[in-house]
Amino acid sequence: MGLNVSELNEVLTVHAKHIGVLDVKADIDVLSRQDLGRAYTPGVAELSKIIEKNPELKDKYTISGKLIAVVTDGSAVLGLGNIGTAAGLPIVEGKSLLYKDLADVNAIPVAIDQVPVDEFVRTIKNFSKTFAGIHLEDIAAPRCFEIEESLKNVLDIPVYHDDQEGTAIVVLAGLINAAKVVGKELSDLRIVINGIGAAGVATARLLFSIGIRNLVLVDIHGVVRADDLNYNHFQRDLAREINLNTDGQSLDDVIDDQDVFVGLSDAHVLSAAQVKRMAQNPIIFALANPLPEIEPQVAANAGAKVIATGSAQYANQVNNVLVFPGLYKGLLNSGIKQVDYRIEKIVAEALASMVEKPTFDHIVPGVFEKGVVNTVSTALERSLVR
Amino acid sequence: MGLNVSELNEVLTVHAKHIGVLDVKADIDVLSRQDLGRAYTPGVAELSKIIEKNPELKDKYTISGKLIAVVTDGSAVLGLGNIGTAAGLPIVEGKSLLYKDLADVNAIPVAIDQVPVDEFVRTIKNFSKTFAGIHLEDIAAPRCFEIEESLKNVLDIPVYHDDQEGTAIVVLAGLINAAKVVGKELSDLRIVINGIGAAGVATARLLFSIGIRNLVLVDIHGVVRADDLNYNHFQRDLAREINLNTDGQSLDDVIDDQDVFVGLSDAHVLSAAQVKRMAQNPIIFALANPLPEIEPQVAANAGAKVIATGSAQYANQVNNVLVFPGLYKGLLNSGIKQVDYRIEKIVAEALASMVEKPTFDHIVPGVFEKGVVNTVSTALERSLVR
Repeated sequence: MGLNVSELNEVLTVHAKHIGVLDVKADIDVLSRQDLGRAYTPGVAELSKIIEKNPELKDKYTISGKLIAVVTDGSAVLGLGNIGTAAGLPIVEGKSLLYKDLADVNAIPVAIDQVPVDEFVRTIKNFSKTFAGIHLEDIAAPRCFEIEESLKNVLDIPVYHDDQEGTAIVVLAGLINAAKVVGKELSDLRIVINGIGAAGVATARLLFSIGIRNLVLVDIHGVVRADDLNYNHFQRDLAREINLNTDGQSLDDVIDDQDVFVGLSDAHVLSAAQVKRMAQNPIIFALANPLPEIEPQVAANAGAKVIATGSAQYANQVNNVLVFPGLYKGLLNSGIKQVDYRIEKIVAEALASMVEKPTFDHIVPGVFEKGVVNTVSTALERSLVR
Repeated sequence: MGLNVSELNEVLTVHAKHIGVLDVKADIDVLSRQDLGRAYTPGVAELSKIIEKNPELKDKYTISGKLIAVVTDGSAVLGLGNIGTAAGLPIVEGKSLLYKDLADVNAIPVAIDQVPVDEFVRTIKNFSKTFAGIHLEDIAAPRCFEIEESLKNVLDIPVYHDDQEGTAIVVLAGLINAAKVVGKELSDLRIVINGIGAAGVATARLLFSIGIRNLVLVDIHGVVRADDLNYNHFQRDLAREINLNTDGQSLDDVIDDQDVFVGLSDAHVLSAAQVKRMAQNPIIFALANPLPEIEPQVAANAGAKVIATGSAQYANQVNNVLVFPGLYKGLLNSGIKQVDYRIEKIVAEALASMVEKPTFDHIVPGVFEKGVVNTVSTALERSLVR
C-alpha cells in the first residue's frame, strides 16, 4: 500500500506548498481606523465586557463557538504505532481539512506531548474555552479510554474519539444493512469482535447498548474475560458486563456458528477454513488497515455473504470519514454537548438509511456520496425535537 | 470612550455574523479519492513516517510551521483588569485578525484558564508542537514575567508578550525620533517611567539595554527601589540593576529636569505644573488607555514639545499594532527563535527609520501606513546576513 516515488513527491509538494493544508481566513477586512474600531479596539472592549457578564456568549461572538480541536499525541497513528507527537500532526491536519472540505466545519490540528494522562487531561481542560468541541485522534489504548472518560467529566463541550465512537458508529451502520441483506434480525446476530483496542471496546459497547447480547471479544491473549489480568480494566469490565457464555480460548475456538466477524485487528488473522465454520451467510467486516484480516476474495470463496473493509479498493468501505464531518456539523448546529450511545445510534441509523435497498456489495453510502454529511447532521438536529 | 448604541449594535452584528471574525481555510479541495489520497490517507502516512525520522520537518509540511498562538488568560484585559479567561477571547481573536489582515500571518486565539504559573507554562509547553510561535496577550504582572521567562527557557519557538516587548519596542521607536525633534542625544535623555507593570518593566529593560542610564521608575507606592518590599522581585531587581540616583519618593519629587515622561499607568496622573518643571522641550508619552496621563492639549500648553498617546485621536499614536504583525512575519521568514533586546532594537530602529524627517507631530508611522509590516519583517530578515 506504499506510494511510488512520483506519488510521494506529489504528496510532499502539496503539503509543502502552503506549509500544511490549512490557513486562517479573516472574515472581515481591517483597512481603516473604522474597521479597526469594529474588529479590535474599542469595539472588542465592549464585547469583552458583555462576555465577562455572560461567559457563554463567547460562543456567539468568538471563533470558540465553532472551532473544533483535532487532538493527537501521536501514540497510535494509523497502522504505524507510537511514532511521536510531531509525527501525528499530518493526520490531525488531514482530518481538519476533511472537516472543512466535507462539512464546512472549522477545525485545527492540536498536537500534545505524551505526558501522563492526568496532565494530558488538564492541558486540554485548561485551553478548552478556546474550542466548541474536542476530536481525539490516534491515541493509544488504554490511555485513550481514561483520557476520554476524564474529559467528558470535566468539559461542557462535546468530546469524541474518532477511533472509538467513529468506528463503532460506522460498524453499526454497516451491520444494520448487512443484517437486512442476509435476512437476520440485528439483535439476534452472533458476533465475534477480534481486536479489543480503542475501536473494539467502543464497538462492543455500542452493540451491547442497542441490545445485541451474543458478543464474543477476542484479542491477542485470546477471549477477553473479566478475570484475565492480561487485559486492562476497561477490557475486563466490558467482558464482565457482556457476560459472554463460552469456554473457548481463541478465535479458532469461538468462530463456529458466528453470524458476524468484526475485525479491528491485523492483516491475515482470519482463514478461509474459519469462515466456512461460521453460520450460514456469514458477514465479514475485515477492517484492519492497510491490509484486512482476510482478503475479500478469499472470504467470498469461503462463503462469506457480505464483506466490508476499511479500504476504498473494495465494495463496502466502512470508514470513519462517513461519520465525523456530519457528526460535528450536527453537534454544532444542534447544541448537543455529549456523544453518547443514543447519539451514536442516531448517526448509525441515519447512515444506514441512505442505502434504500442494501445489497451484498452496497451496505453503506460512499465516502464522497452527496448528502452523507447533511443526512447525519440533520438527524442530530431532528433528534432534539422528538 | 464608550460606543453609542448603534455602534455597539454594529460591533455585535459584525462579530456574530460568522461566529467571531476568523475561519479556517482549506488550501486544497478534497473532492475525489485521488484528492483524499494526497491530502489524507495514504499520503499522510508517508508524511508521518518522514516526520517521525526528522521531527523538525513538521515545520515544512504542516500548519505548525506557520501558525501563531495568541494566548491570554484574561487577567489584564485592556484597561478592564481581570475579567476572566472567556472575556479575553475577543481581544486575542482581534489580534489574530490583525495578524492575518495586516501581515498575512496565520494566528489563532487561545484562551487558557487562570491556573498557577507552572501549570500555565506546562499547558503551553504540552501543546507547543502545534505552533510556530507564542504571542502572550493581556496577562497580568507579575504573573506575565514568570510565564514568559519560563516559556523562553522550555520552548524552542519564539515567545513574545505584546504588552511587554511590543510596548517597549514602539516606545523606543518613538523616543528615537522624539530625541531628534528636540535635538537631544537618545542616550543622554533623563527619563521617568510612570507605571511599572508589564509594559513599564519591559520598556525600562529595553531602554537600559541600549545604554540609557538616567532612568527613574515610579509606580503606585512611589519610586521603585531595590529594597522596597511593596514591589515584586522583578521590579526590585530592575531597580537594583538601574541603580538610580535620587532621594525622591514620588513622581512629583522626581519630575524636575526630566527630559521625558513615559506614562504606562492611568488617566490624569501628570499635571501641567509638573510638565513645566521638566527640562526644556519636554517629551511626553502619555500612553494610558483609554485616557492618557495628561490631555495632550494641556501638556502642549504647559510647554511639552513632543506629545504621544496610545490613541488614534491625536498625532503620534504609539501603538503595538505597529510592531507585532511585522515582527512575527519577520520571525517566521527569518527563522529567528528568540525575541531579545537585539531584536527589539532592530524593530524599533526600523520603525523609526520610516519617518524620514521627524517633527513634533510625526515621530512614528501611522498604523495603516503602507510598508510598516514589510519594513519590520525585512529588517529582521536582513539582520541575519550582517
